[in-house]
Parts: sequence; structure tokens; C-alpha cells
Amino acid sequence: MTTPFKSKADFCALLATQPAPDQDAAAAAAARNSQLTKPAGALGRLEDLALWYAGWRGQAAPMITAPQVAVFAGNHGVTAQGVSAFPAEVTEQMVLNFQHGGAAINQLSTCFGAKMTVHALDLDRPTADFTKAPAMEDDEFIAALATGWQAVDPDADLLVAGEMGIGNTTSAAAIAAALFGGEASDWVGRGTGVDSAGVALKARVVKAGLQQHEAVLQDPIEVLRCLGGRELAAMAGAIASARHHRIPVILDGFICTAAAATLARAEEGALDHCVAGHVSAEAAHGRMLDALGKKPLLSLGLRLGEGSGGALAIGVLKAALACHSGMSTFAEAGVSDG
Amino acid sequence: MTTPFKSKADFCALLATQPAPDQDAAAAAAARNSQLTKPAGALGRLEDLALWYAGWRGQAAPMITAPQVAVFAGNHGVTAQGVSAFPAEVTEQMVLNFQHGGAAINQLSTCFGAKMTVHALDLDRPTADFTKAPAMEDDEFIAALATGWQAVDPDADLLVAGEMGIGNTTSAAAIAAALFGGEASDWVGRGTGVDSAGVALKARVVKAGLQQHEAVLQDPIEVLRCLGGRELAAMAGAIASARHHRIPVILDGFICTAAAATLARAEEGALDHCVAGHVSAEAAHGRMLDALGKKPLLSLGLRLGEGSGGALAIGVLKAALACHSGMSTFAEAGVSDG
Repeated sequence: MTTPFKSKADFCALLATQPAPDQDAAAAAAARNSQLTKPAGALGRLEDLALWYAGWRGQAAPMITAPQVAVFAGNHGVTAQGVSAFPAEVTEQMVLNFQHGGAAINQLSTCFGAKMTVHALDLDRPTADFTKAPAMEDDEFIAALATGWQAVDPDADLLVAGEMGIGNTTSAAAIAAALFGGEASDWVGRGTGVDSAGVALKARVVKAGLQQHEAVLQDPIEVLRCLGGRELAAMAGAIASARHHRIPVILDGFICTAAAATLARAEEGALDHCVAGHVSAEAAHGRMLDALGKKPLLSLGLRLGEGSGGALAIGVLKAALACHSGMSTFAEAGVSDG
Repeated sequence: MTTPFKSKADFCALLATQPAPDQDAAAAAAARNSQLTKPAGALGRLEDLALWYAGWRGQAAPMITAPQVAVFAGNHGVTAQGVSAFPAEVTEQMVLNFQHGGAAINQLSTCFGAKMTVHALDLDRPTADFTKAPAMEDDEFIAALATGWQAVDPDADLLVAGEMGIGNTTSAAAIAAALFGGEASDWVGRGTGVDSAGVALKARVVKAGLQQHEAVLQDPIEVLRCLGGRELAAMAGAIASARHHRIPVILDGFICTAAAATLARAEEGALDHCVAGHVSAEAAHGRMLDALGKKPLLSLGLRLGEGSGGALAIGVLKAALACHSGMSTFAEAGVSDG
């Protein structure tokens, strides 16, 4: 697959010309929904999900049979500031764990019939420490976006983008603060398990990053380049690629949502093909979802990343479409419709 | 399978001598959990679910491979009071729909790999109108409990009990009011879709039922007999049977929870082997779960019954155990543990 952008300007132009849902398919799905053997509205959000999915897929009664979980890994120069409870080498160790099938996301992908792909982005070259320089140079950033774009299987019918990157909750907090304002302390949290002093340190680091990159804070894609990481850029690229291919997306947790939010801030509606799979235990995640107008499907206290919360929500989406497309109508079943 | 009770007294005695979780297995599961390749606690409620399930199954690292969804159907004399938006014949029509595979619960069972069984209880003999007489005579009640008890496959490793019964939200509201107190109006709702006048009528009917059966309101099992229905009694029997077989249970919505609540009120801890699969759009369901100390896994606005919300939560339970029992430990994966 070729990548249809060679520069930030190309990528932004692409975001402005992405496909919209198929209104005819959505209307046909709504008509079908009203005839299914259940009281009107009795499947709650499952009905909304089915209609939304049908519109994006351009089919009145689709099923989900080929979900993809794409996990992106990157290393962060900002770990030099001591922002994580785990050493940076864990990123690569966990990539090996993904490849050997031992991580949570492997089990969740298998459980919900998803194909899992793993994309390690230059782990031996951490991004720059964003308190001192842009995390990525332009060419590194475009390469990471392109890795994400190309990672999406055009034949997938649902995408979860996940991540692994020691230090990346700090990066995500910096992005969130840049996009949504407020204090650095509003957006930092315990990540993989730092203590209160660690949270305070993360806030100072985020604040330093915002000061360092004050000149670009109004440009969401520059925010992603300067404060993000390769795996965050790749998730943004993958989410945009999914839209290009009309593949609905389930957003995962705090880091995935921060990466996705740069697209929404760059182009209104850029996340219309996405649902929030869950709200994580990282406190600022709920605040970010609120700001994006995304109501999470699940709230189970996860704070793992890897795409785990998004993968868990694949079951909900599959179930929604199984009901929508598999149920009998009142007429087919000979049931009185009230 | 023989049914180990012939009377209400037998059934109550049985409830008092049910098995407890295996503490050794739970401890072994907790030890395993602490070694898995993730930050401590990062899978949130999935970890709690895995440990709880392991204890009930008596295994440190079990998987869920044989879930059962048992759907019970009954007809209610109280429909003569005009409490439902649908005619009573829909109960039987929906049973046929279940048998032919056309209902929501069929799709959900298939989606999550559950065996679905359907149990129609004397649909041609509705229970008595509980505003005028006990819904069931003693022998009818014991027969319904026994149907539920025997419906459980001893080889299942997870049970969802669901129901179909036009009029049964009114029965469930009456049970809830009897068990938990408050006004009848606190416990009635729109059911399958009645309007405000219908809700007010349901409150009057519930109040009349409570007055009619005032003498037995302190006896939870009598409450189930006098205000319940055959499918509610069967669900209670199935939930008790699951405990007997050490099969964990996912509770469904308002009606299932009302039936289950009679067990919890009859014998403290009788629902320790149960989790709440979801909180439904029927407003009083959340109140009842709070009273039972059960925090729902899902909140997606479902109000269908059939076991649908419980079946949807099978995916969450399966995922929890897939992670717990399938993930590598730090030592196995060669990952630094922070």
C-alpha cells in the first residue's frame, strides 16, 4: 500500500477530504432495526452502535468478522526525566512478549477473534526529550505516521490501535494539556504505577514541555510531532488510514485517545468513525473523552494500554452487529409487535 | 439429575448448606496474578473477576469454555390488569423465536460461544393474578424451582439465567418492593415500553399485590411464590443449582435480579457466586443492585431481558480468564517487573 502523504501539509489536506458515512446504508439499517423482534430501543447502545457501524461500512446488515488489533511500540527520550515506574528496556521486552503471545493484548485479541499485528518503531532510537527539543524531526514524524497508515489491513472490518512505550503517559498528558488547556497537573496520573512524587514530577515535565513548544501549541499535528512519540504518531496514522478504508475504530485508553485527539483538533469530525472502547483508571482519560464528546462503552478500571480496553470492547461491537444482522423481524418470526 | 428438594423448607435448608469458594485456589490465582506481565492492578476489574472465578471453580488458572444461557418463559395472570405494552401471547411467540434462533439472545449466545437452552413453563397456565391470590400454589412453585434447578448443565462453567414473560417487570417490581421496602412507585418502570399512565397503573397493581400478601412479606421465598412467576422461580432455582455445582453466574437485568434477590434475602451470601452482568435502563435495576452490593460490569442501556445483558457480559468474563490464565509471567517472558 502506498502512503498518500509525504509531508505534514499533505496529511492535513488528507484529513480534510476523508470519507463520510453512507447515509443510505444507515437509513436501511435503521429501518431494519425497527422491525427486529424486541421492544423499540430495548438493546440500548447496541442499537446505536449497529446503525453507526452500518453507515461506515455502507451495508444495511453487516457482521464483524475480521477485526484487527494493531499495537505500536516506541521509546521516549523523556524517560531520562524519571517519569516511569518501569525502565525503558521494558518497551522492547514487551514487544517480544507480544510476538511470543504472552501479553494481555494477545489473549484479548484471540478471545474476540481479532488478528493482532505488532509494529515496533525504531526502539533503539528513542524520541528526543520533549522538554529540550521536538520529540521527532519532520521526517521521523512522517515515517511514524506512515507506519501507522500502512499497518492497517484494508480487509479488516474493525480496528483497535494500541501502544506500548515506557514514558508515554507523560507524552499523552502533554498532548492533552496542549490541546485542551488547563494545568499540567490536570492531565498527569499514575501511569503504570508511579507514586505521588512521581505524579508531581510528571506535571513538572509536562509543564516544561509545554513551555519548550509554546510556539506550536495551536497546531495539533505539530503538537503530536513535538510532544508525542513514534507510537502515538503511528496510532494517529492508523486511525486516519482506517477512515480512508471505511473501517470503524475502537479507541483504547489515555494514550491512544491523546493521539486520536490531535486528529479531531486538526479536522472537526476526524474521529466520527471512532467509538471510545472504555474509560481507563488514568483519571484524565475520562476528561479527555468528555472533551471529545465520546461516551465510553466500558468502565472496568483498566489502565494497561496495549489496546486492551479497545480489544475488550470488540466483543460489544460484535454483539451489537450480531443482534442487528442476525435477529428475525416481527414478520419473519410471527411475533406480535405490541 | 434429581432435585434435592421437595418443599420450600427443603429448598431453604439447601440454601444454608451451599458450597463456598475454594480459598486455596483463590490464593493460588492471586499469586499467579501478581506475576503476570503487566503493572500491578492494570487490568482493573478483570483481575478481580479472574480471582473470584478461580475461587469458585477451585482452579488457579481456569478458562471459560462452556458457558450456558438458560432462558425461562412463563405467563402471568397479572397481565389481566393491563400492565404490559405487549399482549400475553407474545411470550409463546418469543419462545418459538428462541427455538428458531431469531431472538437477540440467540445471537448473543452464539457470539460468545454459549450453549443456549430454552425452558417454557406451562405457558398455557398463567400464574394467578397476584393482586387476588398467590401467583403460584406450593406445588406449582416447587415444580418451577425444580425446572430451573434441572436446567443447569453440570458441565457448564458459567451460567446466565434469562427470562421471557409478558407482565414480568410488574412481578419483579412487586418482589423488589417486598424485599427492599419503599413505595411501589420506586420499583416500577416502563418495562417493554408502557407510557406514564402505564407506569402509574403498574404502581397501583404492585401496591395491591403487597397488600394482598402482607402476611408473607418477611419471607423471601414466599414472596417469590406469591408475587413471582414460574420463570422467576425457575431462575432462582437455576442460580441455586449453579452454586451447588460451583458454576459462577452472571445476573441479567431487573427481573433476573429480583428473582435472585429472594435467595440473597433468604440466605446471606447466597449470591456470592454471582456477578451483575449489567445495569439496565429499567430505573429500579440500579437501585436493586446497590441494595445487593453488586456493581454491574456493563451499563449500555439494555432493557430487553432474555438474559441479553448477562450474555453480553460473558465476553468480559471470558476475557478476564483468558488474560489471567493465558498471559506469561515476568519470569517466563523475560520482562523486568519495575
